[in-house]
Amino acid sequence: MNNIDRVCVVAAGAIGSLLVGHLGTVVDMAVLARRKEHAKALNDEGLRVSGKSELHANVRASTDAAELGDVDLVIIASKALAVEACARMIQGHFPGAHVLMIQNGLGCEEMVSRFGDWPIISGVTFMSGTRHADTHVEYELDTATWMGPWAEGSATFEYVKQVEELFIRSGLKAEAYEDLLPHQWSKLIFNSAVNSISALTDLPHVKAFSVQDNLEDLGHLVYAMMDEAKRIAEARGVTLADDPWVMNVRAVNQGTTSGEDYAHIPSMLDDVRNKRLTEIDWITGSIVREAQKAGIPAPYHETLYRLVKAHESSYDRG
Amino acid sequence: MNNIDRVCVVAAGAIGSLLVGHLGTVVDMAVLARRKEHAKALNDEGLRVSGKSELHANVRASTDAAELGDVDLVIIASKALAVEACARMIQGHFPGAHVLMIQNGLGCEEMVSRFGDWPIISGVTFMSGTRHADTHVEYELDTATWMGPWAEGSATFEYVKQVEELFIRSGLKAEAYEDLLPHQWSKLIFNSAVNSISALTDLPHVKAFSVQDNLEDLGHLVYAMMDEAKRIAEARGVTLADDPWVMNVRAVNQGTTSGEDYAHIPSMLDDVRNKRLTEIDWITGSIVREAQKAGIPAPYHETLYRLVKAHESSYDRG
Repeated sequence: MNNIDRVCVVAAGAIGSLLVGHLGTVVDMAVLARRKEHAKALNDEGLRVSGKSELHANVRASTDAAELGDVDLVIIASKALAVEACARMIQGHFPGAHVLMIQNGLGCEEMVSRFGDWPIISGVTFMSGTRHADTHVEYELDTATWMGPWAEGSATFEYVKQVEELFIRSGLKAEAYEDLLPHQWSKLIFNSAVNSISALTDLPHVKAFSVQDNLEDLGHLVYAMMDEAKRIAEARGVTLADDPWVMNVRAVNQGTTSGEDYAHIPSMLDDVRNKRLTEIDWITGSIVREAQKAGIPAPYHETLYRLVKAHESSYDRG
Repeated sequence: MNNIDRVCVVAAGAIGSLLVGHLGTVVDMAVLARRKEHAKALNDEGLRVSGKSELHANVRASTDAAELGDVDLVIIASKALAVEACARMIQGHFPGAHVLMIQNGLGCEEMVSRFGDWPIISGVTFMSGTRHADTHVEYELDTATWMGPWAEGSATFEYVKQVEELFIRSGLKAEAYEDLLPHQWSKLIFNSAVNSISALTDLPHVKAFSVQDNLEDLGHLVYAMMDEAKRIAEARGVTLADDPWVMNVRAVNQGTTSGEDYAHIPSMLDDVRNKRLTEIDWITGSIVREAQKAGIPAPYHETLYRLVKAHESSYDRG
């Protein structure tokens, strides 16, 4: 028995579009868009998913939340940088809705909670896609989205189980956890090291991230960062679900059996190459802030945080 | 009374050419070139200096040390990366010569001492120039070259004073020190932080390097690196001549009185932008090695060292 019949995705970038295309086949689907052309295109053509799924969903879209009526579930799957703008768009609307947040890093739930008292569900996704147009997204990595009740809010695990069931029924992968923090932190620590180091070195996530043979080897730095973050997690009372260093070694060895160096391009490297602001404040920056709350030193995270922030400031110099 | 009548400059890049152009007006000047065209051009046309000096020097040049005869002073003013190749070129030659080394960082004297038992003089230069052609260099910053007997070799301070006098007589600025280490280390610590951070952030040496207002500010990192290096210098028995942090603040404030942000481009940033190998092994890397010898931790220097090495390794990925 599932009571989630009406879902609204806010903004709808790559991840958001994947959600609209899948969930739109099983529920009444609304999109709260930021651009009028985006809303018009979705109303006229619906949304097409290609790649790992071949789907088409009809969509009700608007740039004004008041036009969409109430829904059961609002999903914000934007980059962390856009969360505040998304929260402003839903402020004063959707009184009967839960809000599911799917971002990298920490702190986005708290941000949204300042704009309304919706029960909040935390989420982390591992799926990926490429947005070819406002009405077409390609589904690439069909991996899971993890979700759980935000610890400081009122959402229940029972409700999260319903969201999980809905995701799975629509063709997505999902896993509900009573306590998402151990999973969220494992991915956070992994992302903090891999993304920031990649952005600064212009290296994709290659085998060098795991090499620790010589003094100069990058693996020493990745290990030291992850070790520092594990101590911060422990001090904050979080027991990790997975060891980030093991995740790192596994990831860089995935593509090497063929002799080819695995070369995933972390999102922060892609941001820096295109001179876009990164999610550094929510990823490495959030670990720096957690260390401050715990009162323990974080020289590695502070260093990488400051270097990426400084690199972002170089964009303006042309 | 000065017994230095015959000088040979090895390789002759920008700094080497400035030395040839000036010293060549007061001594018998030889150049041991790496390229035959370079040697031919110098033999045919001599070397012209423009800019802060307007000079022309006649030069005897060859790619073979045996053709140049003995000299009193050999000068290697190449980048640290090229020192080994320069040392091989003079191996077995110039039995009566002292060798003056002018590089950034530490360790180049030891490298050369493996190729012959010449008395070695350590040098650090602050002058700069642009090499427009094999036979033309522009003298830009007419600041001093510091020199002193290499502590592990047999050169005397009296001889270094003669080299200083020769430099000054030729129109260059020079300062001889009985103990160069306090000066060498001050510049080393300054360069280690400024160059490595600049190379990674794509920021020239701008005011941000001194700002310490907010958690994310880059000045915190510059300060932490310099503070770490000061403790390493102290542990190695070196008393610094100048405080690197004061040098940093002074440098970034030089250009700001006019309202324009001062924007010196450190050589390591220039190297990285042009995908050339940097001097990181001799600069930040040498501080990492000194910390190991002293048995004290160097997390900041290790981090920056590994990041720049990893960045260099990204060049090959195209």
